[in-house]
Amino acid sequence: MDDRIEKQLAFSLEIDKVKNIFRQTHLSGKGRNENDAEHSWHMAVMAYLLREYANEKVDIAKVMLMCLIHDIVEIDAGDTYAYDPVGLQTQKAREEAAKKRLFSILPDEQASELTALFDEFEAYETAESKFAHAMDNLQPLILNNSNNGGDWKEHNVTSEQIYNRQNKTKLGSEKLFEITDNIIKENIAKGNII
Amino acid sequence: MDDRIEKQLAFSLEIDKVKNIFRQTHLSGKGRNENDAEHSWHMAVMAYLLREYANEKVDIAKVMLMCLIHDIVEIDAGDTYAYDPVGLQTQKAREEAAKKRLFSILPDEQASELTALFDEFEAYETAESKFAHAMDNLQPLILNNSNNGGDWKEHNVTSEQIYNRQNKTKLGSEKLFEITDNIIKENIAKGNII
Repeated sequence: MDDRIEKQLAFSLEIDKVKNIFRQTHLSGKGRNENDAEHSWHMAVMAYLLREYANEKVDIAKVMLMCLIHDIVEIDAGDTYAYDPVGLQTQKAREEAAKKRLFSILPDEQASELTALFDEFEAYETAESKFAHAMDNLQPLILNNSNNGGDWKEHNVTSEQIYNRQNKTKLGSEKLFEITDNIIKENIAKGNII
Repeated sequence: MDDRIEKQLAFSLEIDKVKNIFRQTHLSGKGRNENDAEHSWHMAVMAYLLREYANEKVDIAKVMLMCLIHDIVEIDAGDTYAYDPVGLQTQKAREEAAKKRLFSILPDEQASELTALFDEFEAYETAESKFAHAMDNLQPLILNNSNNGGDWKEHNVTSEQIYNRQNKTKLGSEKLFEITDNIIKENIAKGNII
């Protein structure tokens, strides 16, 4: 086996570990916690189906790939809950170290490409990044809504915390933010959100 | 909420169920059984990273989407193990019924689009379908190889059965078949495959 393909297959095997990184979100039907591979799969499919609602024209292949790889760093860095202020303080440093170790398993130019794509996602500046982030917000929201807000109730999340995060969906999609806003308001009315 | 987006979000929620469809393959590190969402995620990432080895030039966005949606029908049809001759006899009929129910949740033109993409995958004729199938073969192979052939041993799978399936990887990628062939031979030598 040549060196290049050996590296590509080593990386392919290494990323299997992201299936063991569990999130706070639960599957629909009050199921178990969701893991990062499932979450990323779901975001990528939703991005494709909902691409017509992006504020700006997006390269959908790039958005999908961004969705698929954005949580690989959590193999080393672990999942940081969106409403965990302590974890959020150290998240950046943990993910930077993870990014270096993990992507460097690949051949150099693929390592650079995936690092750049991850950095673009994190920077939240391009049309693709903003739309991928809209998926990162909307996907757990629809699961949690289907479970009568169980994840918010479990963590006593406030409407202020939720809007601080979900407001940014507007940057990627005004239309999907309207939907988001309705869902949040319904859950406040039902007493699922403080 | 308008009718179109309501259908798109209903489908997005429905496909969450594919995370509960478990396969015979085990995660690396002798982990638990893998589910369809994880498998599809893994195939899509590998397709992108290994696209240079496709025999013919492929539309990689199409290959990735094909990988992501090819197992959604198993929400109704269940997983059919690649080396289960009884299950394989009824697989087609079960999956056709599932395809109709599931994709028809979407707005009509998206239902037609995803149905066509699924049918293209199943038909095994286009460059994209052949390369997506190569991923469908290679992804469980690298996991199983990392687990010292545990899945083959558990089901007493023979080298003939394995080659009947894995030989078709050649149609998508001669290079990845070379790798596959080496992995199978190593596992025969180790006594992991009969």
